[in-house]
Amino acid sequence: MTDNVNYNVQQANDSHLSKVVLNSPLSMPNACAFLWNPQMLLQANCRGYVVAQHMQPEPAKYSYAPNIEAKTFIQPEHNYFAHHPGRFFYIKDEATGELFSAPHEPMRVKVDSYQFIASSNEIKWQISHLQLNITIIVTLTAEDVVERWSLTVENLSKEFRIISVYPYFSIGYMSWMNQSASFNSELNAIVADSVTPYQKVEQYFENKNLKDKTFLASNKKPDSWHCNQQFFEGEGGLHNPDAIQDKTLGNIEAIYQQPTAVMQFREKLVSGRKVEYEFLFGPASTELAIQQMREKYFGGRNLDFHAKQYIKYLNQGNGCLHLETGDVEFDEFVNHWLPRQMFYHGDVNRLSTDPQTRNYIQDAMGMCFIQPNKARLAFITALSQQHSNGAMPDGILLHEKAELKYINQVPHADHGVWLPICLSVYLSETGDKSLLHEQIPFNDITQTRSFIEHIELALDYLLNATDHRGLSFIEQGDWCDPMNMVGYKGKGVSSWLSLATIYAVRSWCEICEQYNLNIDIDKYREYLFAEKAMIAAVNKHFWDGHWYARGITDNNVVFGGHNDSEGRIYLNPQSWAILSNCADDEQTEKLISSVKEQLSTPFGMMMLAPSYTAMREDIGRLTQKHPGVSENGSVYNHAAIFYIYSLLKINKIDQAFDLLKLMVPSSETALKTGQLPLFIPNYYRGAYHQFPEQAGRSSHLFNTGTIAWFYRCLVEHLCGITAKGDKIYVSPQLPKKLSSIKGTRIIRGISFEFYITAADIDAIEVIHNGNRINGTILSNIENDKTNKLYIKLPRKEDD
Amino acid sequence: MTDNVNYNVQQANDSHLSKVVLNSPLSMPNACAFLWNPQMLLQANCRGYVVAQHMQPEPAKYSYAPNIEAKTFIQPEHNYFAHHPGRFFYIKDEATGELFSAPHEPMRVKVDSYQFIASSNEIKWQISHLQLNITIIVTLTAEDVVERWSLTVENLSKEFRIISVYPYFSIGYMSWMNQSASFNSELNAIVADSVTPYQKVEQYFENKNLKDKTFLASNKKPDSWHCNQQFFEGEGGLHNPDAIQDKTLGNIEAIYQQPTAVMQFREKLVSGRKVEYEFLFGPASTELAIQQMREKYFGGRNLDFHAKQYIKYLNQGNGCLHLETGDVEFDEFVNHWLPRQMFYHGDVNRLSTDPQTRNYIQDAMGMCFIQPNKARLAFITALSQQHSNGAMPDGILLHEKAELKYINQVPHADHGVWLPICLSVYLSETGDKSLLHEQIPFNDITQTRSFIEHIELALDYLLNATDHRGLSFIEQGDWCDPMNMVGYKGKGVSSWLSLATIYAVRSWCEICEQYNLNIDIDKYREYLFAEKAMIAAVNKHFWDGHWYARGITDNNVVFGGHNDSEGRIYLNPQSWAILSNCADDEQTEKLISSVKEQLSTPFGMMMLAPSYTAMREDIGRLTQKHPGVSENGSVYNHAAIFYIYSLLKINKIDQAFDLLKLMVPSSETALKTGQLPLFIPNYYRGAYHQFPEQAGRSSHLFNTGTIAWFYRCLVEHLCGITAKGDKIYVSPQLPKKLSSIKGTRIIRGISFEFYITAADIDAIEVIHNGNRINGTILSNIENDKTNKLYIKLPRKEDD
Repeated sequence: MTDNVNYNVQQANDSHLSKVVLNSPLSMPNACAFLWNPQMLLQANCRGYVVAQHMQPEPAKYSYAPNIEAKTFIQPEHNYFAHHPGRFFYIKDEATGELFSAPHEPMRVKVDSYQFIASSNEIKWQISHLQLNITIIVTLTAEDVVERWSLTVENLSKEFRIISVYPYFSIGYMSWMNQSASFNSELNAIVADSVTPYQKVEQYFENKNLKDKTFLASNKKPDSWHCNQQFFEGEGGLHNPDAIQDKTLGNIEAIYQQPTAVMQFREKLVSGRKVEYEFLFGPASTELAIQQMREKYFGGRNLDFHAKQYIKYLNQGNGCLHLETGDVEFDEFVNHWLPRQMFYHGDVNRLSTDPQTRNYIQDAMGMCFIQPNKARLAFITALSQQHSNGAMPDGILLHEKAELKYINQVPHADHGVWLPICLSVYLSETGDKSLLHEQIPFNDITQTRSFIEHIELALDYLLNATDHRGLSFIEQGDWCDPMNMVGYKGKGVSSWLSLATIYAVRSWCEICEQYNLNIDIDKYREYLFAEKAMIAAVNKHFWDGHWYARGITDNNVVFGGHNDSEGRIYLNPQSWAILSNCADDEQTEKLISSVKEQLSTPFGMMMLAPSYTAMREDIGRLTQKHPGVSENGSVYNHAAIFYIYSLLKINKIDQAFDLLKLMVPSSETALKTGQLPLFIPNYYRGAYHQFPEQAGRSSHLFNTGTIAWFYRCLVEHLCGITAKGDKIYVSPQLPKKLSSIKGTRIIRGISFEFYITAADIDAIEVIHNGNRINGTILSNIENDKTNKLYIKLPRKEDD
Repeated sequence: MTDNVNYNVQQANDSHLSKVVLNSPLSMPNACAFLWNPQMLLQANCRGYVVAQHMQPEPAKYSYAPNIEAKTFIQPEHNYFAHHPGRFFYIKDEATGELFSAPHEPMRVKVDSYQFIASSNEIKWQISHLQLNITIIVTLTAEDVVERWSLTVENLSKEFRIISVYPYFSIGYMSWMNQSASFNSELNAIVADSVTPYQKVEQYFENKNLKDKTFLASNKKPDSWHCNQQFFEGEGGLHNPDAIQDKTLGNIEAIYQQPTAVMQFREKLVSGRKVEYEFLFGPASTELAIQQMREKYFGGRNLDFHAKQYIKYLNQGNGCLHLETGDVEFDEFVNHWLPRQMFYHGDVNRLSTDPQTRNYIQDAMGMCFIQPNKARLAFITALSQQHSNGAMPDGILLHEKAELKYINQVPHADHGVWLPICLSVYLSETGDKSLLHEQIPFNDITQTRSFIEHIELALDYLLNATDHRGLSFIEQGDWCDPMNMVGYKGKGVSSWLSLATIYAVRSWCEICEQYNLNIDIDKYREYLFAEKAMIAAVNKHFWDGHWYARGITDNNVVFGGHNDSEGRIYLNPQSWAILSNCADDEQTEKLISSVKEQLSTPFGMMMLAPSYTAMREDIGRLTQKHPGVSENGSVYNHAAIFYIYSLLKINKIDQAFDLLKLMVPSSETALKTGQLPLFIPNYYRGAYHQFPEQAGRSSHLFNTGTIAWFYRCLVEHLCGITAKGDKIYVSPQLPKKLSSIKGTRIIRGISFEFYITAADIDAIEVIHNGNRINGTILSNIENDKTNKLYIKLPRKEDD
């Protein structure tokens, strides 16, 4: 039932934004795009299903499933079904009775032409069918919790026609305590009312100001309306609702029945005539709030003003790098969609009120490339919730009533490593050493300490949280959340965490050196000593002959090594052994070839292989996940990007570039991944040799720590214009597959236009504003004008 | 889209059980029946949707919705939707391609004939369409968690035909951690596998032995199968699945995709040929367990044996009374369906592991009419969880790991009143005074006390939990759970609870008198004094002129009186003022007429009126429920039966009988209630004057404290053969609408055949085994034979 994939990427230019256009609702049925603002998130798939949530201040819904859905975190590989919340438009030709629904659900009629068009600020469908042109657009606002929809219906025929147009917006099962809906003619809106269910009196006061209404407001008066899901559908069902068979919808309320929002607009259209509608859909606490939304957002001038405001908000997310590699799909992705996704993470913290500490800090690292001031604030916020013993909490609480939820109630051992590791990006992008001297409080004592002292406390805590062998305890998980039973008895250790600790210490020492921090010399020596000792310990206990093992369990069993038939090799220890200088050259070559042999797939590197097929009680929950899914051996992009970053560190640019390209959804893999190149998903299915048919399928989950590192790879290695201390360095890497890279880069407020190419030379040649410079450190920088860099790299063999 | 209601009730006789037959899937679309055993519960609606849960030991599912459903208590007015879990059979004529689904969903084809037949031990559908006879039966087993389905397809035409039969059993969204399904040819079953999602390591050990598989086993080898929901449906959808368009289903697995269970049986049927299939559907922890189910339940002899075993289980629920009033629908209900529902409550405690204390005790009261030994045990269990200060807990924990959940986490003030009130039924039915001398522990101290002392502690606790006026504090609710803000600050009082306390004290004093318990005379006088004082206090503070108010809030505001525009009158205080002798004759007449005027509807008495339409923060959650729903002014049958019971106490038999009849679903109200006469629902929609269209609609929730009281009304008042102390009394009441009642009654192991009629006499005449007795106390009872009673009552005016 699928036709060939056919989407295309449209390059941004001055007059319009980057676009991705999909030409069928069948070939990639789960293809989706997302919009957000600081208050809400909306994910629409190409067929009209929508997942939306808003913050009040915890995540909440206003368009529900038809049953009481569990409140939980966003799931990978989200499942759609007939009554999944959606926004549809039934279109009926009153003369012939012909009926279809746009964009595709729930009638699933094969239309004459179909386009799903995702751009940064809006999601659009263009449909032609029954000689009608249908244009549907959804966008958000810069600051409010409301979906703005517009619909245009144009009569393409030469005949006069009567067309009924029925917007159908799911409201669903709101509450067992109280739910109802009716049309409010003053507001010209369907308003559904509910009471968020609760049982304890204290919850009443907590819930009191929740936005318990859902409304669909129109700018035009409907001819009829329907608010009652069951009666709207009747025996016909959602794919052929009874109510639409009649001449009018009958104006039916829902009275402790499942609400829905359907309107009818009966239009007389001469040939060529076009009608336009505007709709607002969202939650509200009062009728007054709905009225205010109407006043604010309806009407042509408002439309234009607020559309620009939203674009203005999104444009705050422009990155500091623009690349032209010649591959439009890749370039559009990294220049537009990647910084957009990074901005989403960094600006609204994935719409979570208690982001995991590791996510929060890495998302802030991404923000260093966009709005370093926000990153600065995030780093301070994170450290202000540090325990005075140096331990970082499992999540960072972002409002006063926020609580640690879900996975953040499980103790993880890695949260201290991220800030030292991510900090160099901030310093490189800004040169702002003042951050390091900020006085910052703790979560448990009244004293403040400097940023530097906080970092050192975190490192000391990590170095102390080691066993007699000098290896890091894993507790109930490290970076890998569901590796929760390796060390829950207090003994198990993690190779990755040991390596990450080394890398964190190394990163900090380099910062101290580059920025002349004058930390205590004994302390500094201690760190150098600890680094060496830990490298030795890791090599002693984890080197498995051809790669590094993943850990040692509470019962002293090494796992992730050649003796294991499942989980024989994990990607992370290999990547971080390179990053932390733990692997020598020989080990590096061996582990790279082991990774290639055992973990590579057409969709990137798997996180481990073979995937576990049964519970291992000395490893944990990871092994119970489905083989190839999430941490159990998917192409988990966060792990894959660490590997790419480590390859770049040792100048394996060709391998790294190939893997970067695989990570971006592309037309080549689209029928397998099912995803458009609008974001990087947290994983593609792995278990490539175990379940080849499913391998490659995207999770469609756009929350991932991957993206900040992806951008870091581009900035630090492909473009290679970075700063250390006061100096700006130029050290790009050019994959053999590219003849050149050109682009622009802004760092510390300074603009560079660069052009990178390869030549038969022995060493890099940099021409800065027409002058060949000595080495790779720039001087005589033009602060006010764009600096021009012409860079030639020695042509090299494949990695 | 509805045709006329057409169901009929078939009387039980020696060869078959009582049956209710519905002849259309359209007129009462939510009509449903339920089956249970001590391990599980299955509710099937007439269209093929099924709600099933089992105990492991907490309630769990094995056939899920298509999204992650919240784990919650059973809801009233359960909502069905296209992908609601169900069990369907697609039937395809391979020659013509014609297709329909039985019983009705998901294709909703109008078939030639349709019957939904509910009997005690099975639910059956008989469908004729396309010249095929389809018979579908589901039943349970006496002890296992498995659904037993059978399907018969008969070729009614004169032609040879090839028919494909496709059982479709929803499995749904099992888990985001791991879900998959495939056909296991050794087991001849589709087996879906999952891991119950969790995040904390301690939950792993708790979940380890859960039944995480769902299977559909067949007694015949299918020609093909399908396990993948998305691909099974394709673009066609559940109402016209793509996979069924093809010749075979293609044997498709689900690999971390939503599982489903579909099989194809391709049959060659000569004219008149009939094929039969058996299916087992349920959860399992291992393949071995599935194999054992197959061996145990497949095959003709097994079928018969286990069917009998299940009937045997259900027959343990026969009641102690059989009535013939001449109204078949009413008689079948009270003789079969009512004790069946009572047995469900009393035997498996509504499949809860922490029943609310008030429910647990009232359900046990019902059990006194069926298996008094079980009631005895329940009373002891309840008292063994009493606090040594006399307070009863909010719920009774039924297994060692059970915890107080949902509403049981909110403190309610009424739990102490129920045992004294319900106890007299046990004593009347059994004469077993030994119960009263049982030594029973507490939940907080090691000492034991006698049953009597426990009861007195409970009463003393209640009498102490009163304010300066002598009125009972309501805390965060009394019988009425959501009346949670009347007294949450510690001051508010409840008229109902005060009256219930009086009634509990009175009941206990009567038991002491009737059974010569020789309790301490000072104690006894104290109770008499307290009773009088409390009656005076209630009359002083709550009598509103024409009825009793409902309470006084924390802020000293009386509510439920003539000053209120909403919640002006509540039913419970009126009923219990009668029961507790608080209302004198004049007050009684006034309140009865107030109730009639303000609370009566064609579906029974509303619990309050007018229903609240907005939150009252000094009353609570009740006022936030939808008007007419649940406690906010529905015909809440538990409250309605108290009123009926109070009318019977004062001999208002005609009013009482009318209300009893209204409570039983009947053909007259069927199109409004939407319910078949298989059980009494917890409510019918009320707010009759506010929402007349919705009024009467059944909640279809068969968990309700109503039924034990309904039966008590029949036993104590209509039949009127009861015991006090050593004596058996005869004091029936005959409504004017009945010319006679005949029936049988078993009490204390003694059988009576009775015939009650009215005559122009002044006082009751009782003829016992042919002898006219003096008064109404029986002597010379035949213990071994059936006693015959011929009773004449004085003809009387209407109440």
